[in-house]
Amino acid sequence: MDVRLINPFLEAAVNVIKTMARIEPKAGRPFLKNDFVASGDVSGVIGITGQVQGSMSISFTGPCIKAVVAGLFGSSVNEINDEVRDAVGELTNMICGDARRRLESDGISLSAGTPTVISGEKHVITHINKGPCIALPFETSDGTFVIEVAFND
Amino acid sequence: MDVRLINPFLEAAVNVIKTMARIEPKAGRPFLKNDFVASGDVSGVIGITGQVQGSMSISFTGPCIKAVVAGLFGSSVNEINDEVRDAVGELTNMICGDARRRLESDGISLSAGTPTVISGEKHVITHINKGPCIALPFETSDGTFVIEVAFND
Repeated sequence: MDVRLINPFLEAAVNVIKTMARIEPKAGRPFLKNDFVASGDVSGVIGITGQVQGSMSISFTGPCIKAVVAGLFGSSVNEINDEVRDAVGELTNMICGDARRRLESDGISLSAGTPTVISGEKHVITHINKGPCIALPFETSDGTFVIEVAFND
Repeated sequence: MDVRLINPFLEAAVNVIKTMARIEPKAGRPFLKNDFVASGDVSGVIGITGQVQGSMSISFTGPCIKAVVAGLFGSSVNEINDEVRDAVGELTNMICGDARRRLESDGISLSAGTPTVISGEKHVITHINKGPCIALPFETSDGTFVIEVAFND
């Protein structure tokens, strides 16, 4: 996989979460995802087409998404409800869109489908493609989230 | 949403499951998905781009996917493992590809990302888009599966 494809997603995640939720996420060390890890309680998934085909997911722990949604709306939420699911879908869209704009200026043109949100404790996400899956972990003061990016080689 | 977009997915699902797993699924009545239903134990999701943006998911109950995988491989499986997840990803790809070929001959050109598979009991899938989400339920002698198709209007 072209490593130029990864950094724009990292930068986009920091930018979108910081701008929208006024939370500054700290990026951890990216790693190759070889195992299927239950990485969150609510996830957004989006398909990517164009010069390369792939998929991106973002998985939040419960406390983390509650803090992000509180930052977005200015009021707290107690459970993962429709409002939270919509917010996760929008954040998925915005992060993928921001990353695509960064890639565009690097000469890589990609399109995206519409996001799908998965909720449910301990769900496992597996990206099925012909290339590696890179996981980008982030820390916030209210817990972690992970972005996964997978492209066909 | 253009209703011409729906039938090809129904036909593709029947064709792929019948051809690959030698199981003949019986299509139920399509319905508008307004509630978030925990529709399966393992799901495949794929993003769609082109003349319209959207997403497709297919959710199997445990007994149903075990029968499908047994049909595919000729040997039974006891749990939802990597092999099953890979099979769900491939079926998602094949059904979406078959539907896209049917739509192509109708003058509608679509591309698809790579599939993502979600496993975990009682997970809930929500398609976040600007149009309705149509659910296509199927019955087999070993249980049900549901295809959901959502496009931006």
